[in-house]
Amino acid sequence: MPGTEAAPVTVPKHPILANDPASDWMGYEVIELSAGHATIQMTLREEMLNGFGIAHGGMLFAFADSAFALACNHVDDDGQLLDPSSITVASGVDINFLRPAKPGQLITAEAHQRHQSGRSGIYDIHIKADGVVVAEFRGRSRTVPNPAAK
Amino acid sequence: MPGTEAAPVTVPKHPILANDPASDWMGYEVIELSAGHATIQMTLREEMLNGFGIAHGGMLFAFADSAFALACNHVDDDGQLLDPSSITVASGVDINFLRPAKPGQLITAEAHQRHQSGRSGIYDIHIKADGVVVAEFRGRSRTVPNPAAK
Amino acid sequence: MPGTEAAPVTVPKHPILANDPASDWMGYEVIELSAGHATIQMTLREEMLNGFGIAHGGMLFAFADSAFALACNHVDDDGQLLDPSSITVASGVDINFLRPAKPGQLITAEAHQRHQSGRSGIYDIHIKADGVVVAEFRGRSRTVPNPAAK
Amino acid sequence: MPGTEAAPVTVPKHPILANDPASDWMGYEVIELSAGHATIQMTLREEMLNGFGIAHGGMLFAFADSAFALACNHVDDDGQLLDPSSITVASGVDINFLRPAKPGQLITAEAHQRHQSGRSGIYDIHIKADGVVVAEFRGRSRTVPNPAAK
Repeated sequence: MPGTEAAPVTVPKHPILANDPASDWMGYEVIELSAGHATIQMTLREEMLNGFGIAHGGMLFAFADSAFALACNHVDDDGQLLDPSSITVASGVDINFLRPAKPGQLITAEAHQRHQSGRSGIYDIHIKADGVVVAEFRGRSRTVPNPAAK
Repeated sequence: MPGTEAAPVTVPKHPILANDPASDWMGYEVIELSAGHATIQMTLREEMLNGFGIAHGGMLFAFADSAFALACNHVDDDGQLLDPSSITVASGVDINFLRPAKPGQLITAEAHQRHQSGRSGIYDIHIKADGVVVAEFRGRSRTVPNPAAK
Repeated sequence: MPGTEAAPVTVPKHPILANDPASDWMGYEVIELSAGHATIQMTLREEMLNGFGIAHGGMLFAFADSAFALACNHVDDDGQLLDPSSITVASGVDINFLRPAKPGQLITAEAHQRHQSGRSGIYDIHIKADGVVVAEFRGRSRTVPNPAAK
Repeated sequence: MPGTEAAPVTVPKHPILANDPASDWMGYEVIELSAGHATIQMTLREEMLNGFGIAHGGMLFAFADSAFALACNHVDDDGQLLDPSSITVASGVDINFLRPAKPGQLITAEAHQRHQSGRSGIYDIHIKADGVVVAEFRGRSRTVPNPAAK
Protein backbone atom coordinates (compact mmCIF):
# COMPACT_ATOMS: atom_id res chain seq x y z
CA MET A 1 0.00 0.00 0.00
CA PRO A 2 1.39 3.41 -0.87
CA GLY A 3 2.86 5.18 2.06
CA THR A 4 2.96 2.21 4.35
CA GLU A 5 6.30 1.53 5.93
CA ALA A 6 7.61 -1.93 5.21
CA ALA A 7 9.54 -3.85 7.82
CA PRO A 8 13.27 -3.40 7.39
CA VAL A 9 15.59 -6.35 6.95
CA THR A 10 18.77 -6.65 8.93
CA VAL A 11 21.95 -6.28 6.90
CA PRO A 12 24.49 -6.24 9.65
CA LYS A 13 27.88 -5.69 8.15
CA HIS A 14 27.39 -4.45 4.63
CA PRO A 15 30.63 -2.62 3.80
CA ILE A 16 28.70 0.25 2.26
CA LEU A 17 26.49 0.74 5.29
CA ALA A 18 29.23 0.14 7.84
CA ASN A 19 31.17 3.28 7.15
CA ASP A 20 29.00 5.71 5.24
CA PRO A 21 28.15 8.88 7.15
CA ALA A 22 25.84 10.10 4.39
CA SER A 23 23.76 6.95 4.75
CA ASP A 24 23.77 7.38 8.51
CA TRP A 25 22.59 10.94 8.17
CA MET A 26 19.75 9.99 5.82
CA GLY A 27 18.74 7.27 8.23
CA TYR A 28 17.28 4.95 5.64
CA GLU A 29 16.26 1.35 6.26
CA VAL A 30 16.94 -1.59 3.96
CA ILE A 31 13.68 -3.30 2.97
CA GLU A 32 14.88 -5.80 0.41
CA LEU A 33 18.31 -6.94 -0.65
CA SER A 34 19.27 -9.61 -3.14
CA ALA A 35 21.75 -10.00 -6.01
CA GLY A 36 21.14 -7.07 -8.34
CA HIS A 37 18.25 -5.66 -6.31
CA ALA A 38 17.78 -3.40 -3.32
CA THR A 39 14.93 -1.41 -1.82
CA ILE A 40 15.43 1.20 0.86
CA GLN A 41 13.09 3.66 2.58
CA MET A 42 13.22 6.78 4.73
CA THR A 43 10.90 9.55 5.78
CA LEU A 44 11.64 12.92 4.19
CA ARG A 45 12.64 15.37 6.90
CA GLU A 46 12.68 19.17 6.97
CA GLU A 47 16.46 19.25 6.77
CA MET A 48 16.30 17.38 3.43
CA LEU A 49 14.47 20.23 1.69
CA ASN A 50 15.88 22.90 -0.56
CA GLY A 51 15.23 26.61 -0.36
CA PHE A 52 11.97 26.09 -2.24
CA GLY A 53 10.52 23.82 0.45
CA ILE A 54 10.60 20.58 -1.58
CA ALA A 55 13.00 17.65 -1.47
CA HIS A 56 16.52 18.70 -2.45
CA GLY A 57 17.38 17.04 -5.76
CA GLY A 58 20.75 16.14 -4.36
CA MET A 59 19.09 14.38 -1.46
CA LEU A 60 16.90 12.25 -3.71
CA PHE A 61 19.94 11.49 -5.85
CA ALA A 62 22.08 10.49 -2.86
CA PHE A 63 19.29 8.30 -1.52
CA ALA A 64 18.83 6.51 -4.87
CA ASP A 65 22.60 6.26 -5.24
CA SER A 66 22.69 4.29 -1.99
CA ALA A 67 20.12 1.80 -3.28
CA PHE A 68 22.17 1.57 -6.48
CA ALA A 69 25.34 0.81 -4.52
CA LEU A 70 23.61 -1.85 -2.43
CA ALA A 71 22.21 -3.55 -5.55
CA CYS A 72 25.61 -3.45 -7.29
CA ASN A 73 27.69 -4.82 -4.44
CA HIS A 74 26.08 -7.99 -3.26
CA VAL A 75 27.12 -9.49 0.06
CA ASP A 76 26.68 -12.89 1.64
CA ASP A 77 24.86 -13.53 4.91
CA ASP A 78 27.92 -12.40 6.84
CA GLY A 79 27.99 -9.07 5.03
CA GLN A 80 31.07 -9.95 2.99
CA LEU A 81 31.32 -8.95 -0.67
CA LEU A 82 30.91 -12.00 -2.86
CA ASP A 83 34.11 -10.98 -4.64
CA PRO A 84 36.25 -9.02 -2.15
CA SER A 85 38.81 -8.17 -4.85
CA SER A 86 36.49 -5.76 -6.63
CA ILE A 87 33.83 -3.15 -5.95
CA THR A 88 31.23 -1.70 -8.26
CA VAL A 89 30.87 2.07 -8.49
CA ALA A 90 28.78 4.53 -10.46
CA SER A 91 30.41 5.74 -13.65
CA GLY A 92 27.43 7.92 -14.44
CA VAL A 93 23.74 8.53 -13.93
CA ASP A 94 20.84 10.02 -15.85
CA ILE A 95 18.11 11.21 -13.51
CA ASN A 96 14.73 12.75 -14.30
CA PHE A 97 12.85 14.66 -11.62
CA LEU A 98 9.14 14.21 -12.26
CA ARG A 99 7.28 15.58 -9.24
CA PRO A 100 8.21 17.31 -6.01
CA ALA A 101 8.48 15.25 -2.83
CA LYS A 102 7.32 16.79 0.43
CA PRO A 103 8.32 16.56 4.08
CA GLY A 104 6.74 13.70 5.98
CA GLN A 105 6.39 11.51 2.90
CA LEU A 106 7.76 7.97 2.95
CA ILE A 107 10.45 7.84 0.27
CA THR A 108 11.50 4.54 -1.28
CA ALA A 109 14.20 3.71 -3.80
CA GLU A 110 13.90 0.41 -5.66
CA ALA A 111 17.04 -0.59 -7.54
CA HIS A 112 17.10 -3.31 -10.19
CA GLN A 113 19.92 -4.51 -12.39
CA ARG A 114 18.82 -4.25 -15.98
CA HIS A 115 21.96 -5.36 -17.78
CA GLN A 116 25.44 -6.58 -17.03
CA SER A 117 28.09 -7.14 -19.63
CA GLY A 118 31.64 -7.69 -18.51
CA ARG A 119 32.40 -5.02 -15.93
CA SER A 120 29.66 -2.61 -17.07
CA GLY A 121 26.07 -2.60 -15.88
CA ILE A 122 22.85 -0.61 -16.15
CA TYR A 123 20.56 -0.24 -13.15
CA ASP A 124 17.14 1.41 -12.92
CA ILE A 125 16.20 2.98 -9.62
CA HIS A 126 12.61 4.14 -9.11
CA ILE A 127 12.25 6.85 -6.47
CA LYS A 128 8.77 7.06 -4.98
CA ALA A 129 7.06 9.28 -2.40
CA ASP A 130 4.10 7.63 -0.69
CA GLY A 131 4.08 5.10 -3.51
CA VAL A 132 4.07 7.56 -6.43
CA VAL A 133 7.15 7.82 -8.65
CA VAL A 134 8.82 11.22 -8.19
CA ALA A 135 12.11 10.56 -10.00
CA GLU A 136 13.71 7.98 -12.29
CA PHE A 137 17.43 7.27 -11.88
CA ARG A 138 19.31 5.19 -14.46
CA GLY A 139 22.75 4.27 -13.18
CA ARG A 140 25.75 3.12 -15.15
CA SER A 141 28.02 0.87 -13.11
CA ARG A 142 31.62 -0.11 -13.48
CA THR A 143 33.40 -2.85 -11.55
CA VAL A 144 36.90 -1.85 -10.48
CA PRO A 145 39.60 -3.30 -8.21
CA ASN A 146 38.75 -2.93 -4.52
CA PRO A 147 41.04 -0.24 -3.13
CA ALA A 148 40.69 -1.89 0.28
CA ALA A 149 41.87 -5.30 -1.02
CA LYS A 150 45.28 -6.31 0.16
CA MET B 1 46.11 27.78 -9.04
CA PRO B 2 44.72 24.35 -8.41
CA GLY B 3 43.82 23.74 -4.82
CA THR B 4 44.02 27.33 -3.73
CA GLU B 5 40.97 28.60 -1.96
CA ALA B 6 39.44 31.65 -3.60
CA ALA B 7 37.93 34.41 -1.51
CA PRO B 8 34.19 33.94 -1.13
CA VAL B 9 31.74 36.62 -2.17
CA THR B 10 28.93 37.68 0.10
CA VAL B 11 25.47 36.74 -1.12
CA PRO B 12 23.41 37.68 1.86
CA LYS B 13 19.85 36.79 1.23
CA HIS B 14 19.75 34.39 -1.68
CA PRO B 15 16.50 32.46 -1.28
CA ILE B 16 18.23 29.19 -2.03
CA LEU B 17 20.91 29.72 0.57
CA ALA B 18 18.62 31.25 3.16
CA ASN B 19 16.68 28.11 3.95
CA ASP B 20 18.59 25.12 2.65
CA PRO B 21 19.84 22.78 5.38
CA ALA B 22 21.70 20.60 2.85
CA SER B 23 23.72 23.63 1.75
CA ASP B 24 24.34 24.55 5.38
CA TRP B 25 25.55 21.05 6.11
CA MET B 26 27.92 21.03 3.14
CA GLY B 27 29.23 24.40 4.23
CA TYR B 28 30.17 25.61 0.80
CA GLU B 29 31.17 29.15 -0.04
CA VAL B 30 30.02 31.13 -3.07
CA ILE B 31 33.01 32.30 -5.11
CA GLU B 32 31.34 33.81 -8.15
CA LEU B 33 27.75 34.62 -8.94
CA SER B 34 26.29 36.27 -12.01
CA ALA B 35 23.36 35.72 -14.38
CA GLY B 36 23.65 32.16 -15.59
CA HIS B 37 26.90 31.46 -13.74
CA ALA B 38 27.91 30.36 -10.27
CA THR B 39 31.05 28.92 -8.68
CA ILE B 40 31.07 27.41 -5.21
CA GLN B 41 33.72 25.62 -3.16
CA MET B 42 34.06 23.44 -0.09
CA THR B 43 36.62 21.15 1.46
CA LEU B 44 35.76 17.47 1.28
CA ARG B 45 35.27 16.12 4.80
CA GLU B 46 35.36 12.59 6.18
CA GLU B 47 31.60 12.58 6.66
CA MET B 48 31.16 13.17 2.91
CA LEU B 49 32.75 9.83 1.96
CA ASN B 50 31.04 6.60 1.05
CA GLY B 51 31.83 3.15 2.41
CA PHE B 52 34.73 2.90 -0.03
CA GLY B 53 36.55 5.92 1.41
CA ILE B 54 36.03 8.26 -1.56
CA ALA B 55 33.58 11.11 -2.08
CA HIS B 56 29.98 9.88 -2.04
CA GLY B 57 28.52 10.33 -5.53
CA GLY B 58 25.41 11.77 -3.99
CA MET B 59 27.49 14.36 -2.19
CA LEU B 60 29.20 15.51 -5.38
CA PHE B 61 25.82 15.58 -7.10
CA ALA B 62 24.18 17.62 -4.33
CA PHE B 63 27.10 20.04 -4.31
CA ALA B 64 26.92 20.55 -8.10
CA ASP B 65 23.14 20.77 -7.90
CA SER B 66 23.53 23.73 -5.56
CA ALA B 67 25.77 25.55 -8.04
CA PHE B 68 23.22 24.72 -10.75
CA ALA B 69 20.37 26.20 -8.66
CA LEU B 70 22.36 29.37 -7.95
CA ALA B 71 23.16 29.84 -11.64
CA CYS B 72 19.53 29.25 -12.64
CA ASN B 73 17.92 31.58 -10.14
CA HIS B 74 19.62 34.93 -10.41
CA VAL B 75 19.11 37.51 -7.71
CA ASP B 76 19.69 41.23 -7.50
CA ASP B 77 22.01 42.92 -5.02
CA ASP B 78 19.37 42.62 -2.33
CA GLY B 79 19.09 38.88 -2.83
CA GLN B 80 15.68 39.08 -4.51
CA LEU B 81 14.86 36.87 -7.48
CA LEU B 82 14.82 38.98 -10.64
CA ASP B 83 11.39 37.49 -11.37
CA PRO B 84 9.75 36.58 -8.05
CA SER B 85 6.79 34.94 -9.81
CA SER B 86 8.86 31.99 -11.00
CA ILE B 87 11.67 29.69 -9.93
CA THR B 88 13.89 27.45 -11.98
CA VAL B 89 14.31 23.82 -10.96
CA ALA B 90 16.13 20.77 -12.29
CA SER B 91 14.01 18.59 -14.54
CA GLY B 92 16.89 16.19 -15.00
CA VAL B 93 20.63 15.67 -14.96
CA ASP B 94 23.21 13.53 -16.69
CA ILE B 95 26.33 13.13 -14.56
CA ASN B 96 29.58 11.32 -15.34
CA PHE B 97 31.93 10.39 -12.52
CA LEU B 98 35.47 10.49 -13.88
CA ARG B 99 37.85 10.19 -10.95
CA PRO B 100 37.53 9.72 -7.18
CA ALA B 101 37.75 12.76 -4.92
CA LYS B 102 39.48 12.41 -1.59
CA PRO B 103 39.10 13.92 1.87
CA GLY B 104 40.89 17.20 2.37
CA GLN B 105 40.65 18.18 -1.28
CA LEU B 106 39.21 21.55 -2.24
CA ILE B 107 36.10 20.83 -4.29
CA THR B 108 34.70 23.42 -6.69
CA ALA B 109 31.59 23.42 -8.85
CA GLU B 110 31.47 25.85 -11.76
CA ALA B 111 28.02 26.23 -13.32
CA HIS B 112 27.44 27.87 -16.69
CA GLN B 113 24.27 28.33 -18.66
CA ARG B 114 24.75 26.82 -22.07
CA HIS B 115 21.33 27.33 -23.59
CA GLN B 116 17.98 28.84 -22.74
CA SER B 117 14.92 28.54 -24.90
CA GLY B 118 11.58 29.53 -23.45
CA ARG B 119 11.35 27.96 -20.02
CA SER B 120 13.93 25.22 -20.69
CA GLY B 121 17.67 25.52 -20.20
CA ILE B 122 20.86 23.47 -20.31
CA TYR B 123 23.64 24.09 -17.79
CA ASP B 124 27.09 22.52 -17.58
CA ILE B 125 28.62 22.15 -14.14
CA HIS B 126 32.27 21.13 -13.88
CA ILE B 127 33.15 19.49 -10.56
CA LYS B 128 36.85 19.71 -9.68
CA ALA B 129 39.02 18.43 -6.85
CA ASP B 130 42.18 20.50 -6.33
CA GLY B 131 41.65 21.90 -9.80
CA VAL B 132 41.25 18.59 -11.64
CA VAL B 133 37.85 17.67 -13.10
CA VAL B 134 36.38 14.69 -11.21
CA ALA B 135 32.82 14.79 -12.56
CA GLU B 136 30.77 16.47 -15.30
CA PHE B 137 27.15 17.39 -14.55
CA ARG B 138 24.81 18.50 -17.33
CA GLY B 139 21.61 19.89 -15.90
CA ARG B 140 18.27 20.40 -17.60
CA SER B 141 16.32 23.27 -16.11
CA ARG B 142 12.67 24.17 -16.20
CA THR B 143 11.17 27.46 -15.06
CA VAL B 144 7.92 27.00 -13.14
CA PRO B 145 5.59 29.23 -11.10
CA ASN B 146 7.07 30.12 -7.71
CA PRO B 147 5.11 28.14 -5.11
CA ALA B 148 5.98 30.87 -2.59
CA ALA B 149 4.51 33.63 -4.75
CA LYS B 150 1.29 35.08 -3.44
CA MET C 1 10.56 -16.50 -29.83
CA PRO C 2 13.75 -14.52 -30.33
CA GLY C 3 14.41 -13.70 -33.92
CA THR C 4 10.98 -14.60 -35.18
CA GLU C 5 9.29 -11.94 -37.23
CA ALA C 6 5.92 -10.90 -35.88
CA ALA C 7 3.10 -10.07 -38.23
CA PRO C 8 2.92 -6.32 -38.86
CA VAL C 9 -0.22 -4.35 -38.14
CA THR C 10 -1.61 -1.92 -40.65
CA VAL C 11 -1.37 1.70 -39.63
CA PRO C 12 -2.53 3.45 -42.78
CA LYS C 13 -2.19 7.18 -42.46
CA HIS C 14 -0.08 7.82 -39.40
CA PRO C 15 1.23 11.34 -39.91
CA ILE C 16 4.70 10.27 -38.83
CA LEU C 17 4.83 7.39 -41.27
CA ALA C 18 3.12 9.19 -44.10
CA ASN C 19 5.91 11.60 -44.85
CA ASP C 20 9.10 10.36 -43.23
CA PRO C 21 11.83 9.40 -45.69
CA ALA C 22 14.08 8.10 -42.91
CA SER C 23 11.39 5.64 -41.86
CA ASP C 24 10.88 4.65 -45.48
CA TRP C 25 14.59 4.03 -45.88
CA MET C 26 14.79 1.90 -42.75
CA GLY C 27 11.79 -0.07 -43.97
CA TYR C 28 10.51 -1.00 -40.55
CA GLU C 29 7.13 -2.57 -39.85
CA VAL C 30 4.77 -1.62 -37.05
CA ILE C 31 4.00 -4.65 -34.86
CA GLU C 32 2.01 -3.07 -32.05
CA LEU C 33 0.53 0.35 -31.57
CA SER C 34 -1.59 1.65 -28.74
CA ALA C 35 -1.75 4.78 -26.57
CA GLY C 36 1.73 5.21 -25.11
CA HIS C 37 3.12 2.05 -26.69
CA ALA C 38 4.65 1.04 -29.99
CA THR C 39 6.72 -1.88 -31.26
CA ILE C 40 8.46 -1.85 -34.62
CA GLN C 41 10.83 -4.26 -36.35
CA MET C 42 13.25 -4.37 -39.25
CA THR C 43 16.06 -6.57 -40.47
CA LEU C 44 19.52 -5.03 -40.12
CA ARG C 45 21.01 -4.54 -43.58
CA GLU C 46 24.60 -4.08 -44.73
CA GLU C 47 24.01 -0.41 -45.48
CA MET C 48 23.07 0.16 -41.82
CA LEU C 49 26.55 -0.76 -40.56
CA ASN C 50 29.36 1.53 -39.58
CA GLY C 51 32.96 1.30 -40.66
CA PHE C 52 33.54 -1.35 -37.99
CA GLY C 53 31.00 -3.75 -39.48
CA ILE C 54 28.41 -3.49 -36.71
CA ALA C 55 25.14 -1.57 -36.54
CA HIS C 56 25.71 2.17 -36.77
CA GLY C 57 24.76 3.72 -33.43
CA GLY C 58 22.92 6.45 -35.27
CA MET C 59 20.87 3.83 -37.07
CA LEU C 60 19.80 2.14 -33.85
CA PHE C 61 19.01 5.55 -32.39
CA ALA C 62 16.93 6.63 -35.39
CA PHE C 63 15.06 3.32 -35.33
CA ALA C 64 14.25 3.63 -31.61
CA ASP C 65 13.38 7.29 -32.10
CA SER C 66 10.71 6.24 -34.59
CA ALA C 67 9.14 3.86 -32.05
CA PHE C 68 9.30 6.69 -29.51
CA ALA C 69 7.50 9.07 -31.87
CA LEU C 70 4.79 6.51 -32.64
CA ALA C 71 4.20 5.87 -28.94
CA CYS C 72 4.08 9.61 -28.17
CA ASN C 73 1.68 10.61 -30.93
CA HIS C 74 -1.32 8.37 -30.73
CA VAL C 75 -3.75 8.25 -33.63
CA ASP C 76 -7.30 6.99 -34.02
CA ASP C 77 -8.35 4.26 -36.44
CA ASP C 78 -8.31 6.74 -39.28
CA GLY C 79 -4.71 7.71 -38.57
CA GLN C 80 -5.63 11.13 -37.19
CA LEU C 81 -3.83 12.52 -34.14
CA LEU C 82 -6.13 12.39 -31.12
CA ASP C 83 -5.35 16.05 -30.55
CA PRO C 84 -4.49 17.61 -33.92
CA SER C 85 -3.52 20.91 -32.29
CA SER C 86 -0.35 19.50 -30.76
CA ILE C 87 2.47 17.08 -31.49
CA THR C 88 4.91 15.43 -29.13
CA VAL C 89 8.61 15.59 -29.90
CA ALA C 90 11.83 14.44 -28.25
CA SER C 91 13.43 17.05 -26.04
CA GLY C 92 16.27 14.69 -25.21
CA VAL C 93 17.44 11.10 -24.95
CA ASP C 94 19.86 9.05 -22.90
CA ILE C 95 20.96 5.93 -24.77
CA ASN C 96 23.25 3.12 -23.65
CA PHE C 97 24.78 0.81 -26.22
CA LEU C 98 25.21 -2.60 -24.61
CA ARG C 99 26.14 -5.07 -27.35
CA PRO C 100 26.82 -4.89 -31.08
CA ALA C 101 24.05 -5.78 -33.51
CA LYS C 102 24.93 -7.61 -36.70
CA PRO C 103 23.64 -7.71 -40.25
CA GLY C 104 20.77 -10.10 -40.83
CA GLN C 105 19.49 -9.82 -37.27
CA LEU C 106 15.85 -8.96 -36.63
CA ILE C 107 15.86 -5.66 -34.75
CA THR C 108 12.90 -4.60 -32.63
CA ALA C 109 12.21 -1.42 -30.70
CA GLU C 110 9.57 -1.56 -27.96
CA ALA C 111 8.50 1.85 -26.69
CA HIS C 112 6.52 2.33 -23.48
CA GLN C 113 5.36 5.49 -21.78
CA ARG C 114 6.68 5.49 -18.24
CA HIS C 115 5.47 8.87 -17.01
CA GLN C 116 3.48 11.81 -18.20
CA SER C 117 3.07 15.01 -16.26
CA GLY C 118 1.61 18.02 -18.01
CA ARG C 119 3.37 18.34 -21.35
CA SER C 120 6.47 16.32 -20.33
CA GLY C 121 6.86 12.58 -20.56
CA ILE C 122 9.43 9.81 -20.09
CA TYR C 123 9.49 6.82 -22.43
CA ASP C 124 11.65 3.70 -22.29
CA ILE C 125 12.54 2.05 -25.57
CA HIS C 126 14.20 -1.38 -25.50
CA ILE C 127 16.20 -2.15 -28.64
CA LYS C 128 16.70 -5.86 -29.25
CA ALA C 129 18.53 -7.94 -31.85
CA ASP C 130 17.11 -11.44 -32.27
CA GLY C 131 15.38 -10.98 -28.92
CA VAL C 132 18.43 -9.86 -26.91
CA VAL C 133 18.64 -6.28 -25.66
CA VAL C 134 21.43 -4.41 -27.46
CA ALA C 135 20.62 -0.84 -26.38
CA GLU C 136 18.41 1.02 -23.91
CA PHE C 137 16.93 4.37 -24.99
CA ARG C 138 15.22 6.65 -22.46
CA GLY C 139 13.39 9.46 -24.21
CA ARG C 140 12.18 12.72 -22.77
CA SER C 141 9.13 14.05 -24.58
CA ARG C 142 7.59 17.45 -24.84
CA THR C 143 4.19 18.28 -26.28
CA VAL C 144 4.20 21.44 -28.39
CA PRO C 145 1.78 23.19 -30.74
CA ASN C 146 1.41 21.38 -34.05
CA PRO C 147 3.21 23.50 -36.68
CA ALA C 148 0.87 22.00 -39.27
CA ALA C 149 -2.27 23.08 -37.39
CA LYS C 150 -4.13 25.88 -39.04
CA MET D 1 30.30 33.28 -40.36
CA PRO D 2 27.13 31.41 -39.63
CA GLY D 3 25.87 29.43 -42.57
CA THR D 4 28.99 29.74 -44.66
CA GLU D 5 30.35 26.48 -45.91
CA ALA D 6 33.93 25.84 -44.90
CA ALA D 7 36.34 24.15 -47.26
CA PRO D 8 36.51 20.44 -46.56
CA VAL D 9 39.79 18.73 -45.77
CA THR D 10 40.80 15.55 -47.49
CA VAL D 11 40.85 12.49 -45.25
CA PRO D 12 41.51 9.76 -47.77
CA LYS D 13 41.39 6.40 -46.13
CA HIS D 14 39.83 6.89 -42.74
CA PRO D 15 38.54 3.44 -41.77
CA ILE D 16 35.27 4.94 -40.56
CA LEU D 17 34.63 6.81 -43.78
CA ALA D 18 35.90 4.08 -46.09
CA ASN D 19 33.09 1.65 -45.44
CA ASP D 20 30.18 3.47 -43.84
CA PRO D 21 27.06 3.62 -45.99
CA ALA D 22 25.26 5.83 -43.48
CA SER D 23 28.01 8.43 -43.82
CA ASP D 24 27.88 8.10 -47.59
CA TRP D 25 24.14 8.65 -47.55
CA MET D 26 24.41 11.74 -45.36
CA GLY D 27 27.09 13.07 -47.67
CA TYR D 28 28.90 15.08 -45.04
CA GLU D 29 32.29 16.69 -45.50
CA VAL D 30 35.11 16.70 -42.98
CA ILE D 31 36.15 20.25 -42.13
CA GLU D 32 38.64 19.69 -39.33
CA LEU D 33 40.29 16.59 -37.96
CA SER D 34 42.89 16.27 -35.23
CA ALA D 35 43.50 14.09 -32.19
CA GLY D 36 40.33 14.29 -30.10
CA HIS D 37 38.61 16.76 -32.42
CA ALA D 38 36.52 16.63 -35.58
CA THR D 39 34.17 18.98 -37.39
CA ILE D 40 31.90 17.85 -40.19
CA GLN D 41 29.19 19.58 -42.21
CA MET D 42 26.32 18.77 -44.53
CA THR D 43 23.27 20.51 -45.94
CA LEU D 44 19.97 19.30 -44.51
CA ARG D 45 17.95 17.69 -47.28
CA GLU D 46 14.23 16.97 -47.58
CA GLU D 47 14.81 13.25 -47.12
CA MET D 48 16.36 13.96 -43.69
CA LEU D 49 13.11 15.34 -42.25
CA ASN D 50 10.56 13.59 -40.10
CA GLY D 51 6.82 13.56 -40.57
CA PHE D 52 6.62 16.97 -38.90
CA GLY D 53 8.80 18.64 -41.55
CA ILE D 54 11.84 19.27 -39.34
CA ALA D 55 15.14 17.43 -39.06
CA HIS D 56 14.65 13.86 -37.89
CA GLY D 57 16.20 13.51 -34.42
CA GLY D 58 17.79 10.26 -35.50
CA MET D 59 19.42 12.04 -38.42
CA LEU D 60 20.97 14.71 -36.20
CA PHE D 61 22.09 11.99 -33.80
CA ALA D 62 23.67 9.88 -36.56
CA PHE D 63 25.43 12.94 -37.96
CA ALA D 64 26.86 13.91 -34.55
CA ASP D 65 27.74 10.28 -33.89
CA SER D 66 29.93 10.33 -37.01
CA ALA D 67 31.83 13.38 -35.75
CA PHE D 68 32.18 11.62 -32.39
CA ALA D 69 33.63 8.51 -34.06
CA LEU D 70 36.09 10.56 -36.10
CA ALA D 71 37.28 12.44 -33.01
CA CYS D 72 37.65 9.19 -31.02
CA ASN D 73 39.58 7.23 -33.63
CA HIS D 74 42.50 9.33 -34.75
CA VAL D 75 44.39 8.38 -37.86
CA ASP D 76 47.79 9.30 -39.26
CA ASP D 77 48.33 11.01 -42.61
CA ASP D 78 47.90 7.71 -44.38
CA GLY D 79 44.50 7.14 -42.79
CA GLN D 80 45.76 4.38 -40.48
CA LEU D 81 44.53 4.18 -36.89
CA LEU D 82 47.30 5.28 -34.54
CA ASP D 83 46.74 2.06 -32.60
CA PRO D 84 45.38 -0.56 -35.03
CA SER D 85 44.80 -3.06 -32.22
CA SER D 86 41.88 -1.11 -30.77
CA ILE D 87 38.91 0.99 -31.80
CA THR D 88 36.84 3.42 -29.77
CA VAL D 89 33.06 3.09 -29.81
CA ALA D 90 30.14 4.84 -28.13
CA SER D 91 29.00 3.20 -24.91
CA GLY D 92 26.28 5.79 -24.49
CA VAL D 93 25.07 9.27 -25.29
CA ASP D 94 22.96 11.97 -23.69
CA ILE D 95 21.48 14.29 -26.30
CA ASN D 96 19.31 17.38 -25.85
CA PHE D 97 17.30 18.72 -28.77
CA LEU D 98 17.05 22.48 -28.38
CA ARG D 99 15.61 23.88 -31.60
CA PRO D 100 14.31 22.46 -34.87
CA ALA D 101 16.62 22.39 -37.91
CA LYS D 102 15.14 23.06 -41.30
CA PRO D 103 15.82 21.89 -44.85
CA GLY D 104 18.48 23.85 -46.69
CA GLN D 105 20.34 24.76 -43.52
CA LEU D 106 24.06 24.06 -43.22
CA ILE D 107 24.45 21.60 -40.37
CA THR D 108 27.77 21.25 -38.55
CA ALA D 109 28.88 18.90 -35.79
CA GLU D 110 31.92 19.89 -33.76
CA ALA D 111 33.32 17.10 -31.59
CA HIS D 112 35.81 17.70 -28.78
CA GLN D 113 37.32 15.28 -26.32
CA ARG D 114 36.60 16.55 -22.85
CA HIS D 115 38.11 13.76 -20.74
CA GLN D 116 39.98 10.53 -21.16
CA SER D 117 40.79 8.18 -18.33
CA GLY D 118 42.04 4.72 -19.17
CA ARG D 119 39.75 3.32 -21.84
CA SER D 120 36.83 5.65 -21.06
CA GLY D 121 36.27 9.10 -22.50
CA ILE D 122 33.75 11.93 -22.59
CA TYR D 123 33.19 13.94 -25.77
CA ASP D 124 30.99 16.97 -26.36
CA ILE D 125 29.51 17.42 -29.81
CA HIS D 126 27.79 20.70 -30.65
CA ILE D 127 25.27 20.40 -33.46
CA LYS D 128 24.55 23.69 -35.23
CA ALA D 129 22.24 24.82 -38.03
CA ASP D 130 23.47 27.91 -39.86
CA GLY D 131 25.76 28.56 -36.91
CA VAL D 132 23.13 28.31 -34.15
CA VAL D 133 23.25 25.37 -31.73
CA VAL D 134 20.25 23.09 -32.28
CA ALA D 135 21.34 20.09 -30.19
CA GLU D 136 23.98 19.13 -27.65
CA PHE D 137 25.37 15.57 -27.73
CA ARG D 138 27.53 14.25 -24.89
CA GLY D 139 29.13 10.96 -25.86
CA ARG D 140 30.66 8.34 -23.60
CA SER D 141 33.41 6.40 -25.32
CA ARG D 142 34.97 3.05 -24.65
CA THR D 143 38.12 1.70 -26.27
CA VAL D 144 37.85 -1.98 -27.13
CA PRO D 145 39.91 -4.52 -29.11
CA ASN D 146 39.66 -3.97 -32.87
CA PRO D 147 37.50 -6.80 -34.24
CA ALA D 148 39.33 -6.36 -37.57
CA ALA D 149 42.76 -6.82 -35.98
CA LYS D 150 44.41 -10.09 -36.81
